[in-house]
Amino acid sequence: MTVPVTADLEGGYADTPQGVADTVRAALSLGAAGLNLEDATGQPDRPLLPADGQVDRLRAARAAADALGVPAYLNARTDTYLSGYGDTDADRLDETVRRGRAYLQAGADSVFVPGLTDPPTLRTLRDRLGGPLAVMYAPGGPDAHILLRAGASRVSTGPSLFLAALGHAATLSAQFRERGTLDTPGALPFGTVQGWFSRSPA
Amino acid sequence: MTVPVTADLEGGYADTPQGVADTVRAALSLGAAGLNLEDATGQPDRPLLPADGQVDRLRAARAAADALGVPAYLNARTDTYLSGYGDTDADRLDETVRRGRAYLQAGADSVFVPGLTDPPTLRTLRDRLGGPLAVMYAPGGPDAHILLRAGASRVSTGPSLFLAALGHAATLSAQFRERGTLDTPGALPFGTVQGWFSRSPA
Repeated sequence: MTVPVTADLEGGYADTPQGVADTVRAALSLGAAGLNLEDATGQPDRPLLPADGQVDRLRAARAAADALGVPAYLNARTDTYLSGYGDTDADRLDETVRRGRAYLQAGADSVFVPGLTDPPTLRTLRDRLGGPLAVMYAPGGPDAHILLRAGASRVSTGPSLFLAALGHAATLSAQFRERGTLDTPGALPFGTVQGWFSRSPA
Repeated sequence: MTVPVTADLEGGYADTPQGVADTVRAALSLGAAGLNLEDATGQPDRPLLPADGQVDRLRAARAAADALGVPAYLNARTDTYLSGYGDTDADRLDETVRRGRAYLQAGADSVFVPGLTDPPTLRTLRDRLGGPLAVMYAPGGPDAHILLRAGASRVSTGPSLFLAALGHAATLSAQFRERGTLDTPGALPFGTVQGWFSRSPA
Protein backbone atom coordinates (compact mmCIF):
# COMPACT_ATOMS: atom_id res chain seq x y z
CA MET A 1 0.00 0.00 0.00
CA THR A 2 1.32 3.42 -0.94
CA VAL A 3 -0.01 6.44 0.92
CA PRO A 4 0.87 10.06 0.19
CA VAL A 5 2.99 11.59 2.94
CA THR A 6 3.21 15.31 3.56
CA ALA A 7 6.32 16.67 5.22
CA ASP A 8 6.22 19.34 7.90
CA LEU A 9 9.22 21.40 6.84
CA GLU A 10 8.55 24.01 9.55
CA GLY A 11 10.42 27.14 8.46
CA GLY A 12 12.26 25.31 5.67
CA TYR A 13 15.40 24.91 7.78
CA ALA A 14 17.02 27.77 5.92
CA ASP A 15 17.28 31.54 6.03
CA THR A 16 17.03 32.24 2.32
CA PRO A 17 14.50 31.33 -0.39
CA GLN A 18 17.29 29.35 -2.09
CA GLY A 19 17.87 27.41 1.10
CA VAL A 20 14.16 26.68 1.43
CA ALA A 21 14.13 25.49 -2.19
CA ASP A 22 16.99 23.09 -1.37
CA THR A 23 15.00 21.69 1.56
CA VAL A 24 11.92 21.30 -0.61
CA ARG A 25 13.90 19.49 -3.30
CA ALA A 26 15.32 17.13 -0.66
CA ALA A 27 11.87 16.34 0.74
CA LEU A 28 10.28 15.79 -2.67
CA SER A 29 13.21 13.63 -3.77
CA LEU A 30 12.51 11.42 -0.76
CA GLY A 31 8.92 11.03 -1.94
CA ALA A 32 6.97 13.69 -0.05
CA ALA A 33 3.68 14.51 -1.79
CA GLY A 34 3.04 17.66 0.21
CA LEU A 35 4.82 20.23 2.33
CA ASN A 36 4.13 22.54 5.24
CA LEU A 37 6.06 25.79 5.34
CA GLU A 38 5.48 28.24 8.17
CA ASP A 39 6.21 31.89 8.84
CA ALA A 40 7.19 31.39 12.47
CA THR A 41 10.75 32.26 13.43
CA GLY A 42 10.93 30.57 16.82
CA GLN A 43 12.16 33.87 18.28
CA PRO A 44 9.84 35.15 21.04
CA ASP A 45 10.65 38.83 20.45
CA ARG A 46 9.97 38.62 16.71
CA PRO A 47 7.83 35.54 16.21
CA LEU A 48 6.82 36.03 12.55
CA LEU A 49 8.88 36.48 9.42
CA PRO A 50 7.95 39.58 7.40
CA ALA A 51 5.11 38.61 5.05
CA ASP A 52 7.00 39.54 1.89
CA GLY A 53 9.97 37.44 2.96
CA GLN A 54 7.69 34.47 3.47
CA VAL A 55 6.12 35.09 0.07
CA ASP A 56 9.59 34.83 -1.50
CA ARG A 57 10.20 31.55 0.31
CA LEU A 58 6.87 30.09 -0.80
CA ARG A 59 7.53 31.15 -4.40
CA ALA A 60 10.92 29.45 -4.23
CA ALA A 61 9.31 26.30 -2.82
CA ARG A 62 6.70 26.20 -5.58
CA ALA A 63 9.32 26.82 -8.25
CA ALA A 64 11.50 24.01 -6.85
CA ALA A 65 8.55 21.59 -6.99
CA ASP A 66 7.60 22.71 -10.50
CA ALA A 67 11.17 22.22 -11.68
CA LEU A 68 11.03 18.64 -10.42
CA GLY A 69 7.65 18.15 -12.11
CA VAL A 70 6.03 17.29 -8.78
CA PRO A 71 2.49 18.62 -8.17
CA ALA A 72 3.30 19.08 -4.48
CA TYR A 73 0.56 20.15 -2.11
CA LEU A 74 1.90 23.29 -0.47
CA ASN A 75 0.29 24.11 2.86
CA ALA A 76 1.36 27.59 3.94
CA ARG A 77 1.16 27.97 7.67
CA THR A 78 0.88 31.30 9.37
CA ASP A 79 1.37 31.62 13.09
CA THR A 80 -0.59 34.80 13.58
CA TYR A 81 -2.91 33.02 16.03
CA LEU A 82 -0.33 30.78 17.72
CA SER A 83 1.96 33.75 18.32
CA GLY A 84 -0.85 36.04 19.50
CA TYR A 85 -0.25 38.63 16.79
CA GLY A 86 -1.64 42.14 17.25
CA ASP A 87 -3.51 44.00 19.94
CA THR A 88 -7.06 43.01 19.02
CA ASP A 89 -8.92 40.11 17.49
CA ALA A 90 -9.56 42.29 14.45
CA ASP A 91 -5.83 43.00 14.02
CA ARG A 92 -5.08 39.32 14.17
CA LEU A 93 -7.74 38.40 11.68
CA ASP A 94 -6.75 41.21 9.30
CA GLU A 95 -3.10 40.16 9.35
CA THR A 96 -4.10 36.54 8.78
CA VAL A 97 -6.17 37.53 5.77
CA ARG A 98 -3.36 39.70 4.42
CA ARG A 99 -0.76 36.97 4.81
CA GLY A 100 -3.06 34.19 3.68
CA ARG A 101 -4.03 35.91 0.43
CA ALA A 102 -0.39 36.69 -0.30
CA TYR A 103 0.62 33.09 0.39
CA LEU A 104 -2.09 31.72 -1.88
CA GLN A 105 -0.98 34.09 -4.61
CA ALA A 106 2.61 32.89 -4.12
CA GLY A 107 1.55 29.35 -4.98
CA ALA A 108 0.22 27.84 -1.77
CA ASP A 109 -2.60 25.31 -2.09
CA SER A 110 -4.02 26.20 1.30
CA VAL A 111 -3.43 28.53 4.21
CA PHE A 112 -2.92 26.75 7.51
CA VAL A 113 -3.88 28.69 10.63
CA PRO A 114 -3.16 26.62 13.75
CA GLY A 115 -4.55 28.03 16.96
CA LEU A 116 -7.81 29.10 15.34
CA THR A 117 -10.79 26.85 16.05
CA ASP A 118 -13.55 29.36 16.77
CA PRO A 119 -16.21 28.52 14.15
CA PRO A 120 -17.55 32.06 13.48
CA THR A 121 -14.02 33.47 13.08
CA LEU A 122 -13.14 30.54 10.87
CA ARG A 123 -16.15 31.24 8.63
CA THR A 124 -15.20 34.90 8.33
CA LEU A 125 -11.59 34.08 7.57
CA ARG A 126 -12.55 31.52 4.94
CA ASP A 127 -14.78 34.04 3.20
CA ARG A 128 -12.17 36.78 3.24
CA LEU A 129 -9.32 34.50 2.15
CA GLY A 130 -11.06 33.31 -0.96
CA GLY A 131 -9.07 30.05 -0.90
CA PRO A 132 -8.68 26.78 0.98
CA LEU A 133 -8.21 27.06 4.73
CA ALA A 134 -6.50 24.38 6.84
CA VAL A 135 -6.92 24.22 10.61
CA MET A 136 -5.65 22.14 13.49
CA TYR A 137 -8.07 20.24 15.71
CA ALA A 138 -7.48 20.88 19.42
CA PRO A 139 -8.45 18.10 21.86
CA GLY A 140 -11.45 19.36 23.78
CA GLY A 141 -12.18 22.01 21.16
CA PRO A 142 -14.80 21.99 18.37
CA ASP A 143 -14.87 18.64 16.60
CA ALA A 144 -13.64 18.12 13.07
CA HIS A 145 -17.13 18.05 11.60
CA ILE A 146 -17.86 21.47 13.08
CA LEU A 147 -14.57 22.84 11.77
CA LEU A 148 -15.32 21.51 8.28
CA ARG A 149 -18.83 22.93 8.32
CA ALA A 150 -17.42 26.29 9.38
CA GLY A 151 -15.35 26.40 6.20
CA ALA A 152 -12.13 24.50 6.86
CA SER A 153 -11.06 22.38 3.90
CA ARG A 154 -8.48 20.41 5.89
CA VAL A 155 -8.33 19.44 9.56
CA SER A 156 -5.10 18.02 10.96
CA THR A 157 -4.27 16.80 14.44
CA GLY A 158 -0.90 18.48 14.99
CA PRO A 159 1.15 16.66 17.59
CA SER A 160 -1.89 15.10 19.33
CA LEU A 161 -1.52 11.56 17.98
CA PHE A 162 2.23 11.55 18.61
CA LEU A 163 1.81 12.87 22.16
CA ALA A 164 -0.91 10.29 22.82
CA ALA A 165 1.27 7.48 21.44
CA LEU A 166 4.21 8.59 23.60
CA GLY A 167 1.95 8.86 26.64
CA HIS A 168 0.71 5.33 26.00
CA ALA A 169 4.27 4.02 25.77
CA ALA A 170 5.19 5.89 28.97
CA THR A 171 2.23 4.41 30.84
CA LEU A 172 3.08 0.90 29.65
CA SER A 173 6.75 1.39 30.57
CA ALA A 174 5.83 2.38 34.10
CA GLN A 175 3.58 -0.68 34.37
CA PHE A 176 6.36 -2.89 33.06
CA ARG A 177 8.79 -1.59 35.66
CA GLU A 178 6.24 -2.23 38.43
CA ARG A 179 4.59 -5.45 37.36
CA GLY A 180 7.08 -6.96 34.95
CA THR A 181 4.36 -7.41 32.32
CA LEU A 182 3.10 -5.49 29.32
CA ASP A 183 -0.59 -5.48 28.55
CA THR A 184 -0.83 -4.44 24.90
CA PRO A 185 -4.10 -5.67 23.40
CA GLY A 186 -4.22 -2.82 20.85
CA ALA A 187 -0.67 -3.30 19.57
CA LEU A 188 -0.19 -3.64 15.84
CA PRO A 189 1.28 -6.95 14.65
CA PHE A 190 5.04 -6.93 14.06
CA GLY A 191 4.62 -8.18 10.49
CA THR A 192 2.22 -5.39 9.60
CA VAL A 193 4.59 -2.67 10.70
CA GLN A 194 7.66 -4.42 9.30
CA GLY A 195 5.81 -4.57 5.98
CA TRP A 196 5.40 -0.81 5.92
CA PHE A 197 9.15 -0.35 5.98
CA SER A 198 10.15 -3.19 3.68
CA ARG A 199 11.27 -2.61 0.13
CA SER A 200 9.19 -5.40 -1.33
CA PRO A 201 5.40 -5.18 -0.91
CA ALA A 202 4.29 -7.06 2.20
CA MET B 1 17.55 15.24 32.19
CA THR B 2 20.11 13.09 30.42
CA VAL B 3 19.40 9.40 29.98
CA PRO B 4 21.75 6.85 28.45
CA VAL B 5 20.49 5.63 25.08
CA THR B 6 21.54 2.34 23.55
CA ALA B 7 21.41 1.99 19.79
CA ASP B 8 20.16 -1.14 18.08
CA LEU B 9 22.66 -1.35 15.24
CA GLU B 10 21.21 -4.67 14.04
CA GLY B 11 23.92 -6.26 11.87
CA GLY B 12 26.04 -3.09 11.89
CA TYR B 13 24.79 -2.07 8.43
CA ALA B 14 28.00 -3.30 6.88
CA ASP B 15 29.54 -6.48 5.51
CA THR B 16 33.03 -6.11 6.96
CA PRO B 17 34.39 -5.57 10.47
CA GLN B 18 35.77 -2.23 9.26
CA GLY B 19 32.31 -1.25 8.09
CA VAL B 20 30.80 -2.26 11.43
CA ALA B 21 33.46 -0.18 13.19
CA ASP B 22 32.45 2.83 11.08
CA THR B 23 28.82 2.36 12.10
CA VAL B 24 29.81 2.05 15.75
CA ARG B 25 31.90 5.21 15.59
CA ALA B 26 28.96 7.05 14.03
CA ALA B 27 26.56 5.88 16.75
CA LEU B 28 28.93 6.70 19.59
CA SER B 29 29.72 10.10 18.10
CA LEU B 30 25.99 10.84 18.20
CA GLY B 31 26.00 10.01 21.91
CA ALA B 32 24.97 6.36 22.12
CA ALA B 33 26.03 4.79 25.42
CA GLY B 34 25.43 1.23 24.28
CA LEU B 35 25.06 -0.87 21.17
CA ASN B 36 23.29 -3.98 19.97
CA LEU B 37 25.02 -6.01 17.28
CA GLU B 38 23.42 -9.18 15.99
CA ASP B 39 24.53 -12.22 14.03
CA ALA B 40 21.37 -12.44 11.94
CA THR B 41 21.76 -12.00 8.19
CA GLY B 42 18.13 -11.46 7.24
CA GLN B 43 18.51 -14.23 4.63
CA PRO B 44 16.05 -17.08 5.25
CA ASP B 45 18.29 -19.76 3.71
CA ARG B 46 21.33 -18.77 5.77
CA PRO B 47 19.96 -16.85 8.75
CA LEU B 48 23.14 -16.62 10.88
CA LEU B 49 26.57 -15.23 10.14
CA PRO B 50 29.39 -17.68 10.83
CA ALA B 51 30.36 -17.35 14.49
CA ASP B 52 33.99 -16.44 13.77
CA GLY B 53 32.91 -13.72 11.37
CA GLN B 54 30.66 -12.25 14.05
CA VAL B 55 33.53 -12.43 16.54
CA ASP B 56 35.64 -10.31 14.18
CA ARG B 57 32.84 -7.77 13.90
CA LEU B 58 32.38 -7.56 17.68
CA ARG B 59 36.14 -7.15 18.16
CA ALA B 60 36.12 -4.32 15.63
CA ALA B 61 33.18 -2.70 17.42
CA ARG B 62 34.91 -2.88 20.79
CA ALA B 63 38.17 -1.55 19.34
CA ALA B 64 36.31 1.36 17.73
CA ALA B 65 34.70 2.26 21.07
CA ASP B 66 38.01 1.92 22.92
CA ALA B 67 39.72 4.17 20.38
CA LEU B 68 37.10 6.83 21.09
CA GLY B 69 37.55 6.34 24.82
CA VAL B 70 33.88 5.42 25.23
CA PRO B 71 33.02 2.62 27.69
CA ALA B 72 30.18 1.49 25.43
CA TYR B 73 27.87 -1.26 26.63
CA LEU B 74 28.06 -3.89 23.90
CA ASN B 75 25.09 -6.22 23.79
CA ALA B 76 25.85 -9.10 21.42
CA ARG B 77 22.68 -10.60 20.05
CA THR B 78 22.51 -14.09 18.67
CA ASP B 79 19.50 -15.23 16.73
CA THR B 80 19.90 -18.94 17.33
CA TYR B 81 16.45 -19.07 18.95
CA LEU B 82 14.68 -16.57 16.70
CA SER B 83 15.93 -18.35 13.59
CA GLY B 84 15.17 -21.83 14.94
CA TYR B 85 18.77 -23.02 14.70
CA GLY B 86 19.49 -26.75 14.73
CA ASP B 87 17.44 -29.92 14.77
CA THR B 88 16.96 -30.27 18.51
CA ASP B 89 16.65 -28.10 21.58
CA ALA B 90 20.06 -29.36 22.68
CA ASP B 91 21.65 -28.32 19.36
CA ARG B 92 20.17 -24.87 19.71
CA LEU B 93 21.32 -24.45 23.28
CA ASP B 94 24.82 -25.77 22.50
CA GLU B 95 25.25 -23.35 19.59
CA THR B 96 23.98 -20.50 21.74
CA VAL B 97 26.53 -21.33 24.41
CA ARG B 98 29.32 -21.63 21.84
CA ARG B 99 28.48 -18.32 20.20
CA GLY B 100 27.74 -16.54 23.46
CA ARG B 101 31.06 -17.49 25.04
CA ALA B 102 32.93 -16.41 21.92
CA TYR B 103 31.06 -13.11 21.81
CA LEU B 104 31.82 -12.39 25.47
CA GLN B 105 35.47 -13.15 24.84
CA ALA B 106 35.42 -10.78 21.86
CA GLY B 107 34.45 -7.93 24.17
CA ALA B 108 30.69 -8.14 24.53
CA ASP B 109 29.22 -7.02 27.87
CA SER B 110 26.28 -9.36 27.55
CA VAL B 111 24.82 -11.97 25.24
CA PHE B 112 21.31 -11.20 24.05
CA VAL B 113 19.16 -14.18 23.13
CA PRO B 114 15.75 -13.01 21.91
CA GLY B 115 13.17 -15.74 21.49
CA LEU B 116 14.23 -17.54 24.67
CA THR B 117 11.95 -17.04 27.66
CA ASP B 118 11.69 -20.56 29.08
CA PRO B 119 12.98 -20.17 32.66
CA PRO B 120 14.72 -23.57 33.04
CA THR B 121 16.52 -23.22 29.70
CA LEU B 122 17.44 -19.68 30.63
CA ARG B 123 18.96 -20.86 33.90
CA THR B 124 21.00 -23.55 32.13
CA LEU B 125 22.20 -21.11 29.49
CA ARG B 126 23.21 -18.55 32.10
CA ASP B 127 25.23 -21.13 33.97
CA ARG B 128 26.98 -22.41 30.87
CA LEU B 129 27.68 -18.95 29.45
CA GLY B 130 29.50 -17.74 32.51
CA GLY B 131 28.56 -14.13 31.70
CA PRO B 132 25.65 -11.71 31.60
CA LEU B 133 22.59 -12.84 29.66
CA ALA B 134 20.05 -10.45 28.13
CA VAL B 135 16.58 -11.58 27.12
CA MET B 136 13.49 -10.12 25.51
CA TYR B 137 10.17 -10.11 27.33
CA ALA B 138 7.33 -11.51 25.22
CA PRO B 139 3.80 -10.21 25.94
CA GLY B 140 1.90 -13.11 27.49
CA GLY B 141 5.11 -14.96 28.37
CA PRO B 142 6.91 -15.20 31.71
CA ASP B 143 7.05 -11.81 33.42
CA ALA B 144 10.25 -9.83 33.84
CA HIS B 145 10.65 -10.80 37.49
CA ILE B 146 10.60 -14.48 36.56
CA LEU B 147 13.13 -13.89 33.78
CA LEU B 148 15.44 -12.04 36.15
CA ARG B 149 15.14 -14.73 38.82
CA ALA B 150 15.97 -17.36 36.19
CA GLY B 151 19.31 -15.67 35.56
CA ALA B 152 18.71 -12.88 33.05
CA SER B 153 20.69 -9.75 33.83
CA ARG B 154 18.75 -7.58 31.40
CA VAL B 155 15.18 -7.74 30.14
CA SER B 156 14.14 -5.60 27.20
CA THR B 157 10.79 -5.21 25.50
CA GLY B 158 11.83 -5.44 21.86
CA PRO B 159 9.30 -3.78 19.57
CA SER B 160 6.38 -4.18 22.02
CA LEU B 161 6.20 -0.59 23.24
CA PHE B 162 6.57 0.76 19.74
CA LEU B 163 3.89 -1.57 18.35
CA ALA B 164 1.59 -0.65 21.23
CA ALA B 165 2.16 3.08 20.67
CA LEU B 166 1.47 2.70 16.95
CA GLY B 167 -1.64 0.66 17.68
CA HIS B 168 -2.85 3.38 20.04
CA ALA B 169 -2.31 6.04 17.37
CA ALA B 170 -4.13 3.88 14.81
CA THR B 171 -7.10 3.40 17.12
CA LEU B 172 -7.30 7.13 17.85
CA SER B 173 -6.98 7.95 14.15
CA ALA B 174 -9.90 5.68 13.30
CA GLN B 175 -11.96 7.32 16.06
CA PHE B 176 -11.03 10.76 14.76
CA ARG B 177 -12.20 9.87 11.27
CA GLU B 178 -15.50 8.57 12.62
CA ARG B 179 -16.30 10.99 15.42
CA GLY B 180 -14.19 14.02 14.59
CA THR B 181 -12.74 14.06 18.10
CA LEU B 182 -9.62 12.75 19.80
CA ASP B 183 -9.85 11.44 23.33
CA THR B 184 -6.28 11.50 24.63
CA PRO B 185 -6.28 11.66 28.43
CA GLY B 186 -2.89 9.88 28.68
CA ALA B 187 -1.10 12.13 26.19
CA LEU B 188 2.16 13.71 27.30
CA PRO B 189 2.19 17.52 27.44
CA PHE B 190 3.65 19.22 24.36
CA GLY B 191 6.17 21.16 26.47
CA THR B 192 7.51 18.01 28.09
CA VAL B 193 8.24 16.33 24.79
CA GLN B 194 9.52 19.51 23.15
CA GLY B 195 11.90 19.84 26.10
CA TRP B 196 13.40 16.44 25.37
CA PHE B 197 14.46 17.59 21.95
CA SER B 198 15.56 21.13 22.76
CA ARG B 199 19.17 22.13 22.97
CA SER B 200 18.78 24.10 26.17
CA PRO B 201 17.59 22.20 29.27
CA ALA B 202 13.81 22.42 29.64
